[in-house]
Amino acid sequence: MTRVNAYAAPREAAPLEKTVIERRELGPNDILIDIAFAGICHSDIHTVRGDWGPQRYPLAPGHEIAGTVAAVGDAVTRHRVGDRVGVGCLVNSCGECRSCLRGEEQFCVNGAVFTYGSTDRDGTVTQGGYSEQVVVTEGFAVRIPEALPLDKAAPLLCAGITTYSPLRRGNVGPGSRVAVVGMGGLGHMGVQIAHALGAEVTVLSQTLSKKDDGIRLGADHYFATSDPATFKDLRGSFDVILNTVSAAIDLRAYLGLLDVDGALVCVGLPPEQLGLNVGSLIGGNKSISGSNIGGIAQTQEMLDFCAEHGIGAEIEVIPASEINAAYDRVLASDVRYRFVIDASTI
Amino acid sequence: MTRVNAYAAPREAAPLEKTVIERRELGPNDILIDIAFAGICHSDIHTVRGDWGPQRYPLAPGHEIAGTVAAVGDAVTRHRVGDRVGVGCLVNSCGECRSCLRGEEQFCVNGAVFTYGSTDRDGTVTQGGYSEQVVVTEGFAVRIPEALPLDKAAPLLCAGITTYSPLRRGNVGPGSRVAVVGMGGLGHMGVQIAHALGAEVTVLSQTLSKKDDGIRLGADHYFATSDPATFKDLRGSFDVILNTVSAAIDLRAYLGLLDVDGALVCVGLPPEQLGLNVGSLIGGNKSISGSNIGGIAQTQEMLDFCAEHGIGAEIEVIPASEINAAYDRVLASDVRYRFVIDASTI
Repeated sequence: MTRVNAYAAPREAAPLEKTVIERRELGPNDILIDIAFAGICHSDIHTVRGDWGPQRYPLAPGHEIAGTVAAVGDAVTRHRVGDRVGVGCLVNSCGECRSCLRGEEQFCVNGAVFTYGSTDRDGTVTQGGYSEQVVVTEGFAVRIPEALPLDKAAPLLCAGITTYSPLRRGNVGPGSRVAVVGMGGLGHMGVQIAHALGAEVTVLSQTLSKKDDGIRLGADHYFATSDPATFKDLRGSFDVILNTVSAAIDLRAYLGLLDVDGALVCVGLPPEQLGLNVGSLIGGNKSISGSNIGGIAQTQEMLDFCAEHGIGAEIEVIPASEINAAYDRVLASDVRYRFVIDASTI
Repeated sequence: MTRVNAYAAPREAAPLEKTVIERRELGPNDILIDIAFAGICHSDIHTVRGDWGPQRYPLAPGHEIAGTVAAVGDAVTRHRVGDRVGVGCLVNSCGECRSCLRGEEQFCVNGAVFTYGSTDRDGTVTQGGYSEQVVVTEGFAVRIPEALPLDKAAPLLCAGITTYSPLRRGNVGPGSRVAVVGMGGLGHMGVQIAHALGAEVTVLSQTLSKKDDGIRLGADHYFATSDPATFKDLRGSFDVILNTVSAAIDLRAYLGLLDVDGALVCVGLPPEQLGLNVGSLIGGNKSISGSNIGGIAQTQEMLDFCAEHGIGAEIEVIPASEINAAYDRVLASDVRYRFVIDASTI
């Protein structure tokens, strides 16, 4: 057992504080990672505060982890000491079920082990990336290509794969007309990835305040959803709408923006029920779907794609002492576009 | 102009009565069809009664038409006098827009002309199949293979394509686990088609009263949705759920029946808004979609498929004098499974 410094919530709704957590001894298939950077995801905040159900505390969040391999178990073949690696939302799964076999470990029938707040195979509660080191089974660490700086790569492990996966599944490519709803941590990745896939990209954001950034990151068009004309002018304009916001939306209005056969994909989780008129779907063979991160192989594919296209998160690197202040700013949408913790300050 | 006998509603909400309607003179690309049979679709009733918006009267409904070619225009190349042909929900479209070019004439950007109650290219109101003859442009009549009796083929023109199209789009085939919700005019076609495509088929019907028919038509399993155990026992069991009912359903319950990556496809149109928890989608990369009939080429493909697999509608042939009584029985779900009007009695 190794004791490492971490930032964790001592109890529900409490600010995070510096503490010491335990990491397991290296098993034959494990690797030990020196964490360099950990991104702050909106869901870290929801989880540690208990918004999505009770947790066991202390709990260190963080599932956007980038670092280097510090040690490897005897049977490890995929990684070597010194390799640049990342860990996302998953640290284990059964490897044998239907979902695992088709590379969707996040839907492991026997229960995926998530990076923090999840019960690990040994019965302990997993602890996330706001810490100095982490031990994971080698199959759940992905290679971070040299072209990607570790700090800008960290958020790709969640925000990158969350937007990459549905865009790929939606066969987005040259000729696709894609709208990205929301210009935040997820949205700014969706814009870059959709653009790199060759799509014509439109940002639909509440206001035009981030328009310059949107255009710089690859958007071809940028409209305010607070302007009713947007929903009139863009009617029937999109093949795919990637909705990254977790506030409730007017489904009929957004479905109206889709062309025939269009797909509205939701990666944000509004707490409220939304009202759905089935006629809004039947009227043009349209669909609404949800997408939940992505499997390990696709996460590697996404990192390679981002490296090839020079894509990284737009980040603000902070010392660990500013985590709680950063949480407040995330909740106020006051970040462009992802906070990344410098793990050397933990 | 040719005057032909027909059954039409003289005004909103009025019973249908025998009358005479006009058919246009044969243009160079038109064919004249002697109608043999016309199916009664639930939407005929909604439309002529004004449930879906105001209509122009008198209005003869009917978009499940089977008959033989009686005459052809000078430029007709696809059909010959004596050919067995069918006409479904569409009788014209622009042929040039994006939707038409990809074979989805029902979504013609310039406005598809529907078989009845639609404004035709010449400004007249189209009149449907409850009549002796109809004139259509040749591209909107499909060939009915010899293996299909005309009476059992008529309902395929709407109920058949409405269920075939989403099952094909959902890549249903051997290994697919398909649930068909509702065992009525649409559902009993969905069961036969999904079975013929090689899927494992489950019927989800309100009661078990039609179970014997369901099994005979190809269902492997049959469950009652009135039994709460159904939603518990079948959790995560299906790749595709084809929902043919137009009553409101509990989306969360039905989405729970889908496995990861599963699709709920709606072809029935409930008048109420449904409540949607986006988490029910994100939790397994699931989707809800709508599907609206199918294009002409796919309608032909469906008829050929049905002929090859010996699939037809289960029908009750009635004389035209019983149309109004049949409407009452359709509304009471008292038909197994489609009424077909013998057009020789019109």
